[in-house]
Amino acid sequence: MSLLWPGEERAGDLFSEAAYLAAMVRVEEAWLAATASSGIAPEEARTPLAGLVSEADLPGLAEGAEAGGNPVIGLVKLLRGRLEGEAARWLHKGLTSQDVVDTALVLCLRDVLDRVEDELAAQATSLVGLAREHRATVMSGRTLTQHAVPITFGLKAATWLSGLSDAAEALRRTRTSLPAQIGGAAGTLAAVVGLARLRGLADPVGAAQTAADATAAALGLTARAPWHTNRAPLTAAGDALVTAADAWGRIATDVTLLTRPEIGELAEPAGEGRGGSSTMPHKSNPVLSVLVRRHALAAPPLAATLHTAAATYVDERPDGAWHVEWETLATLARRSVVAASQTTELLAGLRVDAARMRATAEAAGADLLAEQRSLTGFVGGDVLAGTDAATGLDDYLGATDALIDSALTRAHEIWKTEP
Amino acid sequence: MSLLWPGEERAGDLFSEAAYLAAMVRVEEAWLAATASSGIAPEEARTPLAGLVSEADLPGLAEGAEAGGNPVIGLVKLLRGRLEGEAARWLHKGLTSQDVVDTALVLCLRDVLDRVEDELAAQATSLVGLAREHRATVMSGRTLTQHAVPITFGLKAATWLSGLSDAAEALRRTRTSLPAQIGGAAGTLAAVVGLARLRGLADPVGAAQTAADATAAALGLTARAPWHTNRAPLTAAGDALVTAADAWGRIATDVTLLTRPEIGELAEPAGEGRGGSSTMPHKSNPVLSVLVRRHALAAPPLAATLHTAAATYVDERPDGAWHVEWETLATLARRSVVAASQTTELLAGLRVDAARMRATAEAAGADLLAEQRSLTGFVGGDVLAGTDAATGLDDYLGATDALIDSALTRAHEIWKTEP
Amino acid sequence: MSLLWPGEERAGDLFSEAAYLAAMVRVEEAWLAATASSGIAPEEARTPLAGLVSEADLPGLAEGAEAGGNPVIGLVKLLRGRLEGEAARWLHKGLTSQDVVDTALVLCLRDVLDRVEDELAAQATSLVGLAREHRATVMSGRTLTQHAVPITFGLKAATWLSGLSDAAEALRRTRTSLPAQIGGAAGTLAAVVGLARLRGLADPVGAAQTAADATAAALGLTARAPWHTNRAPLTAAGDALVTAADAWGRIATDVTLLTRPEIGELAEPAGEGRGGSSTMPHKSNPVLSVLVRRHALAAPPLAATLHTAAATYVDERPDGAWHVEWETLATLARRSVVAASQTTELLAGLRVDAARMRATAEAAGADLLAEQRSLTGFVGGDVLAGTDAATGLDDYLGATDALIDSALTRAHEIWKTEP
Amino acid sequence: MSLLWPGEERAGDLFSEAAYLAAMVRVEEAWLAATASSGIAPEEARTPLAGLVSEADLPGLAEGAEAGGNPVIGLVKLLRGRLEGEAARWLHKGLTSQDVVDTALVLCLRDVLDRVEDELAAQATSLVGLAREHRATVMSGRTLTQHAVPITFGLKAATWLSGLSDAAEALRRTRTSLPAQIGGAAGTLAAVVGLARLRGLADPVGAAQTAADATAAALGLTARAPWHTNRAPLTAAGDALVTAADAWGRIATDVTLLTRPEIGELAEPAGEGRGGSSTMPHKSNPVLSVLVRRHALAAPPLAATLHTAAATYVDERPDGAWHVEWETLATLARRSVVAASQTTELLAGLRVDAARMRATAEAAGADLLAEQRSLTGFVGGDVLAGTDAATGLDDYLGATDALIDSALTRAHEIWKTEP
Repeated sequence: MSLLWPGEERAGDLFSEAAYLAAMVRVEEAWLAATASSGIAPEEARTPLAGLVSEADLPGLAEGAEAGGNPVIGLVKLLRGRLEGEAARWLHKGLTSQDVVDTALVLCLRDVLDRVEDELAAQATSLVGLAREHRATVMSGRTLTQHAVPITFGLKAATWLSGLSDAAEALRRTRTSLPAQIGGAAGTLAAVVGLARLRGLADPVGAAQTAADATAAALGLTARAPWHTNRAPLTAAGDALVTAADAWGRIATDVTLLTRPEIGELAEPAGEGRGGSSTMPHKSNPVLSVLVRRHALAAPPLAATLHTAAATYVDERPDGAWHVEWETLATLARRSVVAASQTTELLAGLRVDAARMRATAEAAGADLLAEQRSLTGFVGGDVLAGTDAATGLDDYLGATDALIDSALTRAHEIWKTEP
Repeated sequence: MSLLWPGEERAGDLFSEAAYLAAMVRVEEAWLAATASSGIAPEEARTPLAGLVSEADLPGLAEGAEAGGNPVIGLVKLLRGRLEGEAARWLHKGLTSQDVVDTALVLCLRDVLDRVEDELAAQATSLVGLAREHRATVMSGRTLTQHAVPITFGLKAATWLSGLSDAAEALRRTRTSLPAQIGGAAGTLAAVVGLARLRGLADPVGAAQTAADATAAALGLTARAPWHTNRAPLTAAGDALVTAADAWGRIATDVTLLTRPEIGELAEPAGEGRGGSSTMPHKSNPVLSVLVRRHALAAPPLAATLHTAAATYVDERPDGAWHVEWETLATLARRSVVAASQTTELLAGLRVDAARMRATAEAAGADLLAEQRSLTGFVGGDVLAGTDAATGLDDYLGATDALIDSALTRAHEIWKTEP
Repeated sequence: MSLLWPGEERAGDLFSEAAYLAAMVRVEEAWLAATASSGIAPEEARTPLAGLVSEADLPGLAEGAEAGGNPVIGLVKLLRGRLEGEAARWLHKGLTSQDVVDTALVLCLRDVLDRVEDELAAQATSLVGLAREHRATVMSGRTLTQHAVPITFGLKAATWLSGLSDAAEALRRTRTSLPAQIGGAAGTLAAVVGLARLRGLADPVGAAQTAADATAAALGLTARAPWHTNRAPLTAAGDALVTAADAWGRIATDVTLLTRPEIGELAEPAGEGRGGSSTMPHKSNPVLSVLVRRHALAAPPLAATLHTAAATYVDERPDGAWHVEWETLATLARRSVVAASQTTELLAGLRVDAARMRATAEAAGADLLAEQRSLTGFVGGDVLAGTDAATGLDDYLGATDALIDSALTRAHEIWKTEP
Repeated sequence: MSLLWPGEERAGDLFSEAAYLAAMVRVEEAWLAATASSGIAPEEARTPLAGLVSEADLPGLAEGAEAGGNPVIGLVKLLRGRLEGEAARWLHKGLTSQDVVDTALVLCLRDVLDRVEDELAAQATSLVGLAREHRATVMSGRTLTQHAVPITFGLKAATWLSGLSDAAEALRRTRTSLPAQIGGAAGTLAAVVGLARLRGLADPVGAAQTAADATAAALGLTARAPWHTNRAPLTAAGDALVTAADAWGRIATDVTLLTRPEIGELAEPAGEGRGGSSTMPHKSNPVLSVLVRRHALAAPPLAATLHTAAATYVDERPDGAWHVEWETLATLARRSVVAASQTTELLAGLRVDAARMRATAEAAGADLLAEQRSLTGFVGGDVLAGTDAATGLDDYLGATDALIDSALTRAHEIWKTEP
């Protein structure tokens, strides 16, 4: 919850500090189990960790995180103090802090992507409905702020839908390739291979890789060679989230415009107290669109920060570039959930004034049909014989129907919405 | 406190959600007092508000902030419910939400700038000491990663100091011109002028401006015509904070380099548990520099976001650009305090290995003096007669002494450090 | 001239490749003269260089610039080949490439700032005129896209003017403190001090500083200790140019909105072929505003790039951060001139439809006066006795007149516009 | 060629102004042919356009581009003047300016992506060679600037290679889905459908879509519904190019570090005059890495600008957001080619000092093997019996061999490099 980013509570616990802590614990637990099952650690080392740490530990861990530069040293110490025997001894053995931090970031990100995917599906359903319902609702097509040629609101909804389709594809690609990070101090898995060797395993390298793969599998992530200094998995996620923000921002920008009283073709869903003013009793501000636009303006520089960090990685683990990613990614991710949820609500309740759209288009008919008139003159009399005279806005919609169908088909492939 | 931005607790309550809430209450209080003292509101309306709201109100206010798009509507309602009589009636009269939000942002910013100023002064003191102590400590001057010509570590410290001087001047300029925002619904002060007129004051416009000026004065801010859509006061603050981040980042980048074991000319201050690793017992990571660099990499895009917002303002109050500023500014401000504090600690305890500097420079002497040799050859034999033969690193330091003095003088003018 | 950035020719030769080359030559010439006048070089070394290099040399110099990482090595070689005697020998002696590049960047920047200043003055004159002429032209004050309370177009013009005032102050501060860069290989002036010593001067350090100061003076720049790694002079210029872009963008955003046919309160100046469409004969697109908005969207990340570079400087001269600045700064500067010129033209010919403004405001009168009605009810009957009944839009303009006066006064102080 | 971005000539004519002009002409030509072949235009309209426009037309077109806001109006006029009969009449019929601009941008982008792909393949070949040759070349693995555990230079090369693999996958995905833009004034294809109808075609919508598809096919692009306001095709290209910049930047950052004289493990390829200084005869600056880092620092904000534009699209074609993309994309694309080419050269000639790597690692052996010692102590005496005593750097390389193999296998899948 935040006074400074209204609506922030929509993100709930997703990628919160508490979720991040829980994710780190899950990583340590999965690794402990994997080292046991691969024979590197004794079977007694395997133990559930979930209950050992709670939100009450957050302040202490946060305060201690600066000394080591990250929260893992403190977390391992805390967990060891609450464990006994082989579990305490084998906890974290073979990992480096970055393995735990990165994999936990990815787990938090995964939950965010799943939620955003759900929101996109709901948005697509709304837009499919709007595209169908307003397939023939004529309105002014505007370009560079001026009346151009007629469109239908169904086409506008279909165009918004295409933006969501692009975003969904980018997000899914990222979602299905999210990797675990298991590399050890410098990405060689030396410690875990060394432990496997010391424990007398026949194929220490194979055992280490088995443990790494098992950890990824247990967490539902992809196995991948260490990516300590290749940050494409994170930058791709950032880029995909920004692509979604672009799609939402583009919708919200249209809505803030079309809800202006001089245009009045759209209105945000009414809500208790929604859109009021501290001094003007009549106001009905398009608050959802405004807050979605806010995210769209702030998101691109956050993803750019992830790229700048990625480009300045050095050595086997870097000197600041890594540390910049954590909160940047969490902020981008949480705000994405907020904007996704607001867009879902916006589209589910969007009010369309078809009559006003029609009236404005008719009033601007001379302009909206100027191109058409120029065509008629261009082709000339003979050719026109035997064809329908195109006489109005409804006759100058070109391939609108087919384009709506195409967007609906694509949405159906992605979300199984009605085709 | 944050697992995701270690060291975040250094910012304490500065520009926290609670501080921001308290600042909004201060604005309402100052305005209530100013309207009373200017005769617009009855004297009974004047009342202290500070105790009426506490951190316990934060979650409710935050959750309610989305409906109105900002937290002021909820805050005013809450305060009115806890007040009685004229105070309840006159609270917030004449203001718009943006007046309260913007002025509260500025108040929070002011406290941050004051703290950063203190940190800069402490840093300057450390650097003045280092510049004096190591005025003649020869080291390799490196350019494009290679040995160039000799410098002294005192000169490097003086150069860092000049960066702080630039930042301090930018921050002070911003600090002394921070304006209050009092404009009413569309920046005309219409409501307060209207109230003054209805209350029968002889000069309603004058009374409104008096109230606005008195509010600014009570809050220690500058009076300025409404800047609802001119965001230079905020972008200038953002730019100044980034200028400071640049100066700290530039220092930290040198430190992370010079603490490398192959160079070893500097070391971060030792601290309990500082710089340790989760797996490697010997590690001593330059954690402070690493965390400062983190901020320096993330800060410029945040200030750019403030500019992008400023450039897309529209109408008398905009449709998203305003809302993007709040958390962006708070994040930039709090992180600035964290990095400032870390830099202060870094410089106060920086360990300089003058012998290693000397040894490296002497080993690279042939390279470091190559330019000098070329000069001697260039000017030729006759001219050399009667001049000192420049024989070593200490003789090829050019104007180093004078340049150090110049940096010390400038620092003295800014911070009254020892000249 | 550019197909990719229409209007680019407005920048003319300002900060072009040719201008940059000429500026580098001016720096070498000024330095040669200064070393001669300070007695470091023989008087015969002094020579004008301006005619020695022409645009025909650009391709060769550009192609050779990669090998050394910058164009100075090639330029010095080329100049030496076209000089004779002492001038050829003493050319560039004591300087490093960065001295020449940085000072030339600053010279180009200075010319840009002067031009932008002229444009701002012209814009201010237009806005002063509009603010006066439309002081009482009532229009709807809009907030969050909705009708709020009445304003006048004169107030809007005055508000735009305040944005220009903020920008002008930032630009002037930068303009008056633009420094020359004279530091030598590692910022110690070692070579020139060494030469002065070898030439038998009594005070070699003093002579070197005299030469540096004389160079700055000859070029009309400020003398400053070497700032090879303190980039605040450049980041401040970038920030100031972006502050101007914000002010222009904010105006252009209003214009693109208010020229929409549904609103129609403003129109761009008509121009031959201006705003046409490739297919729609009736179109009159607000091209100037559109192109100004383009710059405002692209500018903040360019200034942020300068900051990111500044924050990652290392050593006595860095490993990439410097090189990123040159074209970034030139692009930001040239585009600033283009947008400045377009804004000047936009404001000089802006067409105001006062009748339409009035009609829209009257039609929205119930909304625009809702706040006023609430005040009347609030203060109550007794108080109202003896005051004027506020009956219409013109009566609810608050301090509009005084606020316009205040903006005009500030503009007068800055530009000597009519008060 | 550029003094301000040394190495710029490496991009040759790719995405130059001339290439962009030629691409626009190709789009008009392909459309003319497609409208003829689909029966919308008469067969006589089909004509080659390539020779009609030359670089000599650039200045005129550029200067005229501002009036219409883009260069297409002028180009169409110019082409019509040089054509006769049906070709002159039917040229551009059915298209809007944005169709021509966007498709031409995509064509230029395609050529850039092809070139970057070639460079990546060459880089991969070099890295595969380095990874194989130095599979067992022990060096210090460094984390947070300090010695951590041993790695091999072959592993570092393999890690760099993985970064290239990530970039190549992103670029190929973008490359294979580059769409043509054919939409008409407001994305409805109304004009071309109208023409088909007027010309008496049985299925005017089908004919229009056939023409659009044929245009895409003739240009080697993907057919896609109009994306006038869905900019994911461009932002995805920008993101992919930045992902490549990250990979190159990450390599260059390692090289600039490891070529420092105190480390000296790598050296850039020697080249005639490469890396020299204007004053210091001995200097050998890592110029290629420095210039690559330059691009990596400047690229992320350019891609972010494309996203900011995408998020602020409005209407059927927007009011500034479109115009910001053109030069931003061209700059990002051309600089990508430059950096790609520089990285290819860097890697092809990279000099590896294996002996120095070994010597440094051995000197730091106590630190590099500290983790290993802790493991031995951890597992304890009994377990150690019967296992090899791990005695040195070569024994503590963990899964290095397998990880190198994994990177080689992935590269083989992407580029058919030696497995």
